[in-house]
Order: sequence, then C-alpha cells, then structure tokens
Amino acid sequence: MTKIGFIGLGNMGGPMAANLVKAGHEVTGFDIVAAHTESLGTIGGHVAATVADAAAGRDVVITMLPAGHHVQDVYLNDGVLASADPGTLLIDCSTIDVATARSVAAEAAKAGLGMIDAPVSGGIMGAEGATLTFMCGGEEDDFAKAEPVLQVMGKTIIHAGGSGNGQAAKICNNMILGVSMIAVGEAFVLAEKLGLDHQKLFDISSTASGQCWSLTTYCPVPGPVPTSPANRDYAPGFTAGMMLKDLRLAQDAANAAGAVTPLGAEAAALYGLFDAAGHGGVDFSGIIKLIRGNQ
Amino acid sequence: MTKIGFIGLGNMGGPMAANLVKAGHEVTGFDIVAAHTESLGTIGGHVAATVADAAAGRDVVITMLPAGHHVQDVYLNDGVLASADPGTLLIDCSTIDVATARSVAAEAAKAGLGMIDAPVSGGIMGAEGATLTFMCGGEEDDFAKAEPVLQVMGKTIIHAGGSGNGQAAKICNNMILGVSMIAVGEAFVLAEKLGLDHQKLFDISSTASGQCWSLTTYCPVPGPVPTSPANRDYAPGFTAGMMLKDLRLAQDAANAAGAVTPLGAEAAALYGLFDAAGHGGVDFSGIIKLIRGNQ
Amino acid sequence: MTKIGFIGLGNMGGPMAANLVKAGHEVTGFDIVAAHTESLGTIGGHVAATVADAAAGRDVVITMLPAGHHVQDVYLNDGVLASADPGTLLIDCSTIDVATARSVAAEAAKAGLGMIDAPVSGGIMGAEGATLTFMCGGEEDDFAKAEPVLQVMGKTIIHAGGSGNGQAAKICNNMILGVSMIAVGEAFVLAEKLGLDHQKLFDISSTASGQCWSLTTYCPVPGPVPTSPANRDYAPGFTAGMMLKDLRLAQDAANAAGAVTPLGAEAAALYGLFDAAGHGGVDFSGIIKLIRGNQ
Amino acid sequence: MTKIGFIGLGNMGGPMAANLVKAGHEVTGFDIVAAHTESLGTIGGHVAATVADAAAGRDVVITMLPAGHHVQDVYLNDGVLASADPGTLLIDCSTIDVATARSVAAEAAKAGLGMIDAPVSGGIMGAEGATLTFMCGGEEDDFAKAEPVLQVMGKTIIHAGGSGNGQAAKICNNMILGVSMIAVGEAFVLAEKLGLDHQKLFDISSTASGQCWSLTTYCPVPGPVPTSPANRDYAPGFTAGMMLKDLRLAQDAANAAGAVTPLGAEAAALYGLFDAAGHGGVDFSGIIKLIRGNQ
Repeated sequence: MTKIGFIGLGNMGGPMAANLVKAGHEVTGFDIVAAHTESLGTIGGHVAATVADAAAGRDVVITMLPAGHHVQDVYLNDGVLASADPGTLLIDCSTIDVATARSVAAEAAKAGLGMIDAPVSGGIMGAEGATLTFMCGGEEDDFAKAEPVLQVMGKTIIHAGGSGNGQAAKICNNMILGVSMIAVGEAFVLAEKLGLDHQKLFDISSTASGQCWSLTTYCPVPGPVPTSPANRDYAPGFTAGMMLKDLRLAQDAANAAGAVTPLGAEAAALYGLFDAAGHGGVDFSGIIKLIRGNQ
Repeated sequence: MTKIGFIGLGNMGGPMAANLVKAGHEVTGFDIVAAHTESLGTIGGHVAATVADAAAGRDVVITMLPAGHHVQDVYLNDGVLASADPGTLLIDCSTIDVATARSVAAEAAKAGLGMIDAPVSGGIMGAEGATLTFMCGGEEDDFAKAEPVLQVMGKTIIHAGGSGNGQAAKICNNMILGVSMIAVGEAFVLAEKLGLDHQKLFDISSTASGQCWSLTTYCPVPGPVPTSPANRDYAPGFTAGMMLKDLRLAQDAANAAGAVTPLGAEAAALYGLFDAAGHGGVDFSGIIKLIRGNQ
Repeated sequence: MTKIGFIGLGNMGGPMAANLVKAGHEVTGFDIVAAHTESLGTIGGHVAATVADAAAGRDVVITMLPAGHHVQDVYLNDGVLASADPGTLLIDCSTIDVATARSVAAEAAKAGLGMIDAPVSGGIMGAEGATLTFMCGGEEDDFAKAEPVLQVMGKTIIHAGGSGNGQAAKICNNMILGVSMIAVGEAFVLAEKLGLDHQKLFDISSTASGQCWSLTTYCPVPGPVPTSPANRDYAPGFTAGMMLKDLRLAQDAANAAGAVTPLGAEAAALYGLFDAAGHGGVDFSGIIKLIRGNQ
Repeated sequence: MTKIGFIGLGNMGGPMAANLVKAGHEVTGFDIVAAHTESLGTIGGHVAATVADAAAGRDVVITMLPAGHHVQDVYLNDGVLASADPGTLLIDCSTIDVATARSVAAEAAKAGLGMIDAPVSGGIMGAEGATLTFMCGGEEDDFAKAEPVLQVMGKTIIHAGGSGNGQAAKICNNMILGVSMIAVGEAFVLAEKLGLDHQKLFDISSTASGQCWSLTTYCPVPGPVPTSPANRDYAPGFTAGMMLKDLRLAQDAANAAGAVTPLGAEAAALYGLFDAAGHGGVDFSGIIKLIRGNQ
C-alpha cells in the first residue's frame, strides 16, 4: 500500500485515480472542481482541501493537468514542492511542453525531490481500462520507483531517458502520427478522384511501403478497418483538438531547440484550420474531411 | 512458351527481360541504346531492329520506359499499336502519369488491343531477383492473361481496377511513403535536439501509433534497423530522384483530378530541394540530411 | 480595318470581341454556345458556323478558351491551322499551361503561321472596359503586328520573350500574388488574435517591408482600402477558383521544368481546400476566411 | 536633457546609445560584456557597474537585448523593476515574444512603472544613422513620453496599441516579408527554368499584382534593383538568421494565441533549412539559393 496524492481529477485523472484506489492504495485527491474531488471520496479515496494538503505526507504525488502553466502553478505556487515530504516521488502525467517539464523538474531537484514526467497515450478508454502507455523521463532510480505505481494505471511503461524525455518521446511520436494520418487521408482522396477503390488502396499499401498505423490500425475511411472511428462517423477516440495540442507542443519544442520540421509545421497548420472551422471535437482521423472539402 | 516483345532494356527492363528468357519464353527485345538490345541477344533473347519489329507477331508486348511521353511515342508513333497482331496483349510496366496511361490504353482499345498498366516497385534488386511488385490496371480478362507473365518477373501481382489504376495505386502508395519518410526524419532530428536517443524513439514509436514502414523497415538513422540504407551511408535502394519523380507524378495527377494534397505537395518540394542541391542519387531516406542541414 | 476571326465568345471573349467591333474592325466570331455567337451578330460582328469558317480568310485569328486541351483541339483538330491563310497572325489569349502554348505555337510555325500567346489579367471588368493587361510570348515581328490589335482591348501590352513566355510571366506573377494574399491574410488573423487593429497593421506594413499589392491595393479585410472586395463581402473581382487555376498551372509548369516552389505549392493546396469547401466563386482575397476558420 | 539608463550595448544598442549621447542626454550604460560598457564611457556616456546601477535614478531606462528570457532576467531578477525610481519610463527595444513583453509590462505596472515595448527595424545601419523604425506598444501617455527619446534614434515612431503590440506589429509585418521574399525567389527560379528573363519578370510584376517590397525594393536577383543585396553576393543587410528569429517569434505567438499561419510556418521551416545548412549569416534575400539548389 502506497500513500498517493493525486492532483487533477478530470476526464483522465479521475479514472486513473480510481484504478489506484481499486488496487488498494491510499489515494488523497484534489481538483479545482469540487465535484471531481468529492467523486473520488465516494469510491474510497480521501478528499484534500488544497493542493498542499494533497501533497503533504505522501509517498508519491501524481499530477494530471491540462497545460504547462498549470503544472508550473501547482508545483511552484500552490505548494507541491513546498509541502511534499523529503523522499516523496513526484510524477507529472500531464502532456506539456518539454521546457516547462524540465524547469519544474529542476526546481524539484533543488528542493531535494525526485520527479518523473510521464505523459500518457491511450485516451479516456485507456485511463478507464488501465491500458495507458506511459512515456517517462527522469532518473533511473526514480523511474524504478514510479514503475509499479504506473503499472496499476497502464499496460506499457517506457523509460525514455532523462527529465523531459517522456514529453519529448510523446511529441516526436505524435508528430509522425499527425503527419501520416493526413498523408493517408490525402492518398484516399486522391484515389477517389482517380477512381481507385478505398479497399484496393488499403490492400496494396497495407502490405507495402505505405504501411503505417494510421492506415492499418486507424484507417480514416470506413470499411477496411472495422474498429476505426471512420466507421462511427469519426466519434473520438483521440480528438483533432488533442492532436492539435500535441502538434503545437512539438512546434514549440522545435522552435525552442532550433529543429526544423516542415511537415510537422504544416500538419499543425492543417489541424489548426480544421479546429478553427469548429471540428476540434471530431476524431483526428476526420481530418480527411478537410482534405476532401466536405466538412 | 509465350512470344514476348520487350521494349526498353535499361537498368530495370534488362533484368526483367532476362528473367523471361530464363523461364523459357521467346523474348524479342528492342532498346534505343543498341548495346542494351545486343546484350539481350547474348543471353538467349532475339534482337529487333525497331519498335515495330519487336511488337509484330507477339503474344505479349511489354514496355519499360522512363516517362509518359516515351510511352506515347513508342505506342502511337513508333508503331506498337500499328504493328501488333490482333489479340496481342500490351503490358506497360513504366511508371508514368495516370492521364497518359489511360489515353494510350484508350488508343489501344480503339485498335482492338487489350492493354494493362503495370508499374513496379522493388527497384533493380527486385528486377534482378524477380521479386518485383506489380500494381496493375485494366480489364479483368487482360489482367488474367498478364498475371502468369508478370509472375515470372515478380512476387506480388495486384489488380487495382480499370485502366490507369496501377499507376494510381503506385503514386498513392508512394505519396504516403515519401511524406512518412520525411516525418520520421523530422522526428529523429527533433529527438536529437531534445536529447532523446534514436534507439529510444525507435523502441517507443515502432510499437506505438507512430509506427510506419519508413520507421520500422527502412529507418533513416543508422542502428535500429541494420538492413536500412542509413547504415551504409544512404547508398540506394530507391533514390531520392526516383521518389521525386513519383511525388511529381502524384502532384500532376492531383492537379489534373482536382484533388488537394498539401503534405504530398510539400514532400515533393522538399525532395525537389534535396535533388536541386545535387543529392538525387542518394537513397530517399537520406532526406533526413536536408532536415538536419548537414548535406 | 483588320479582318479578325474570334473564337471563344464567353465572359471574357464576348466583351473583348465587342471592343474590336466598336473600333471598326471586321470581326467574325464563333463559339460552341450558339447564343454567344449570335450575340456578336447583333452588335455588328459576323457569325461563323465553324471554327474553320472563323479562321479562314482573316488577317488575325484570336482565341479565348478555358484550358490547354481546348486550345489544342481548336488549333489542331477543329481547323485553325488547316484553314488559316498564309500570313494570318494567330493570337491565343487563353490562360493555359506553358507546354501546350509552346507545342501549339510550334505546330503553327510548321504550318508557316506566326503565333503569339497573350494571356490577360484584369478580369471581366478589364475586358469590358478595354483595360486588360496582355502578357505576350512570341517572335518580335509577330508581337509588333499583334500590338495594335491588343491595344484596342487593353491598356498594357508587354512582350515577355519567345513563345510561351506570356503564359510563363502570368503564372510567375500570379504565384507571387496568391502567396502574398495568403500571407497578408495570415498576418491580419494573427494580428486579430494578438489584439492588434487591422488599421494599425495596415498603416505600419503599407509603408514598411511588408508592403505588397495584396495589402495596399486589394486589402483582404474591410476598411483600409475602400475599393477592395473585402468591403463588399468578397464579391469578385478575381475568384478563388481562377486563382486556383493559375496556381495549378504554375505547379504543372514547375513540375515539368523541375523548378521547386514550396510556397507556391502550399498556396495551391490552400486555395484547393477553399475551393473544395465550395468557395471557388468568392473573390480570391476571401481566402482569409479559410485561415480564420469562419467559412 | 534626460537621464537615461541603457542596458544592452551590442551591435544595435551601442550605436543607439551613442546617438542619445550625441543629442546631449545623460546616458548611463551597462552591458555584460565589459568592453561594450567601457566603450560608451569613451564617447561621453557614464558607466554602470550593474543593471541596478543603470536603472536607478533615471528618467528613462532603455533595454536592447537578444531574447525574451534576457528581458525577463534583466527586469525581474537583475533589478530594473526593483531599482527604478517611481515615474521612470521603461522602454524595451528588444525583439522578443509577445507573451513575455506583456508579462514583463504587467510586472512593471504592478511596480507602478510605465513600460513601452518598442522593437525596431532598420538593422545596424539604421541604428548608426538614427533612421530606425520603432513599433511601439503601451499606454498612450507612456508612448507620448517615449516618442521624443525614440526620435533621437529613429525616423519613424509608430504607436500600435497596448502593451505587446509593438512586438505584434513587427512579427506580423516580418511574416509577410519572409513569405513574400520566398515567393519572389520561387517566381524568379520558375522563370529561369521556363526561359523568362529576370528583368522581364521584374518589369511585369513590379507594375502588376505581384508587386511587393521584396521584389521592387529588395529584389533577390542581381540587376533590376541595383541597391539590393543580390548585387553584392547577398552581403547583409538583414540576415537570414534574423529573419528566422522573427518568423519563429511569429510561430510562437501564433501557437500561443491559436492563430493558424500555414505559409508563415512553412517560411519559418525554409529559413530554418537554410540556416541549418550554415547560411544564417547571408542576407535573407539569399533564400533564393536554397530554392535554386545552389547553396
């Protein structure tokens, strides 16, 4: 049994904390939305009145927050670093920019606290089913301590290197994903205009050099892959808005690090156009509608 | 034993014709480079003096030429259509634009001749080893007649639909390929700048949503996939120049058909920059050097 | 008085031919839409029954057609080259691809006929008001003969060099135009999001290094330039569909010539998205709506 | 006579401060490079030992620093806000991100100090010749106080609105500039490949809808505009590296504000490729070499 503080109990954090409770851990939660915090109380968790209360006296503090500035606020201003006991392990599961992840971890280190960045993939279904993938950055021994806790909430736990590398791995992967999904969409639309059947293109490319997860697991046209969101009118799944967030984080990191990513930049722009047109809530494979013009 | 006329005996056509000879077919060849034609003579083939000679009196005529205007010339002006016997099956293995493929096939049909477009993938090694993939467009019964002949030269023979669909399938596939190779290159370069190891990113993305052939079979950095050209200083394989040709064919088809392919267009531009800088002979995975700036 | 055959009497050709009639020339017209041909008859022109009739016995034959394949048909198949008298000057005012312009001119030369490509800018208003700009390609002496005829229909007549260079000049100019219009739109949208007034940005950039025709003459937001289409809800002017046509011609020419145009390609894709979404009839400055997401 | 503190005395700040000295103001300077500070001492300025020394007891404090984090450090950590007298006006002439400009100005306001962001254009020559353009953001009355001081160092002083709007105006303008320079380069390269003379294209577009500052004032090919850097092998002027910095600031602002700038993003990527290839010190009009492949 581990004493865990859990800060951020929304769509993702809520079910993640619930899985920790189910596994027999003592989970004390906090969310700025009081109803979320209370919800944890009704399923066997403890309710904290403040961030500081959630962080004090724990073996592990986990955070699941929307953006970098929230993480900065919660750790530096609202008291995680100030309140955590010596020896508490900090795990930030938020998807945020690499620079903030590294600067907050550096502040934690100054305070004598180990910290892991551990952004997830797998969405709400993965959070509920405890099948998330965690991409982790931080010291080897901190990762070793984090791993058994993360295994309660996920299926695949990967150590990507030092601080911030969990975030780095996630944005690098999702940049490939966002670009290849658009490419697959473009190929299907071109095929349509040339009179080439969706299924034919799928049959050919799925066993050839065009093979990619976006095609063979998450095919953006209905038919070839029955489980893909295209078969349910692009109900998410992973929304276009969430893909846009990750692509913009990749662009922020690339700009700050001086990396050049022409297609990553263009993919961010295309998801930006789709989102600006009001389709941010659609599954990200729905970008084919932008390409086709039938939004 | 089939009587085959073979026009275009260069790097690809030469070994393809040789495989037909080896299989016991009567192959009569022609190439505008006399040495290529003679070469076929020395290994058991017959030598034709003109395109018309190669085309007359055959069961099957196969062409393997560089571009659409060559195909147009050879079929319409140099005499394939005028010389071929009734019932001769025409197979064009060239990679050319969809519009020309369809218009030449339409002329063949007017002349009462069946025609298949059957562009290949697999490169010179595939041509020599008879492991090519043929993507075919044309009538069902013409495809049925073409299939046993193509099986002598390749391993995978696919019928993609009506006339021109072989070309369509090839450019749709290779557009996904070209885009995803650049995306993978961008991700590795971003990872470098962020301090994330190549192998780590490979381990993560190869089993996650960023998985694609460009990453897992043809990885553009040395190490993770020992057989990929990156491990031999980007010796081709499939050159950047050939990728550029296919991406431009895709753009021509998209422009003509009114399809919109923002990333396909940008990939064509990036391979165009790489080629213009003198690197068209490098393997197409070498595009990572353009992204990194160390050409 | 010059005897002029005029083929293609639509939105542009109709008023152009009318201006020639008004100037006292003997104009014999033909259009595949009979009503257009008859219309010319009612204002003092002559009516031809066929292309060949319009072309035979004239000093000058002018064509104004939608696309390259129409020009090819009219000159090569429908009889302009076969019917025109020796010494007749051919002027094609259509906006078409450079390759077709050059190949038709080469056929004309074989037939002993001089030919000028002379695409226009200025739109329907320019055609009606005889204020068109003609960008001309062809031999010096043919241009000298064409000039006085073109001056009846336009204000600015430019000789851009040999055959096809009129088309080349037009697509190079319009590629700059299409790109810079999108750039100006992006800048205004970014300004909006940053709380910078349209008028302030206009005042600054119109006298600084961001100055361009798209900003200072054809400003895509209402206000700063009262005559720009933005002030009349983007009623054209020059439609997005026409801009898309020119950008695609530029891409075709670039692909064929091996030129690399990354922003030209992306501009074509963005106008393609706008057109695919049903906005091809809007003024091309309306592309700012795509950028803003409020189509 | 105004008492001015000047922090940041490099290539730009040095000559700017010198102009203030020449105009009879009492200028006390500081730079982390001691030689720069001393240099000001030799021409009649005063030498401060620290940032705080430079800031205390002045009517106006001016800063000219490389990036947002320097501005943050100098104002918040090194003591400008803590040391400045009540009533001191703060003017930051650095080109930095909008978000930092606004947050530092907000901190200044909390400390009861007025602050103007006033990034410049005009380069080193403008700094030396006192011909800079200042784009200013801040309160009306603060701007009124800043204006006479800025007029000593520049020719055009513009008030773009509230805090951060100076930065916003600069990046919006320079985003148009960067995009249009690439577009003009692409047009010239396409013209070359099509056999259209540079001068012809210039003559046509400079009086047509392709007209823009990048073409008519700063033409990227030698010849048409004798004063442009193309005529001196692209010696800067305004370097590609500086353009890249501004384009990345524009991307940062767009990402943060949720604006979509597809061509701005692509322009940043292209300047990024050029810079990564080692050409950051070339004039930004030299980007035509990347497009042409002859770097």
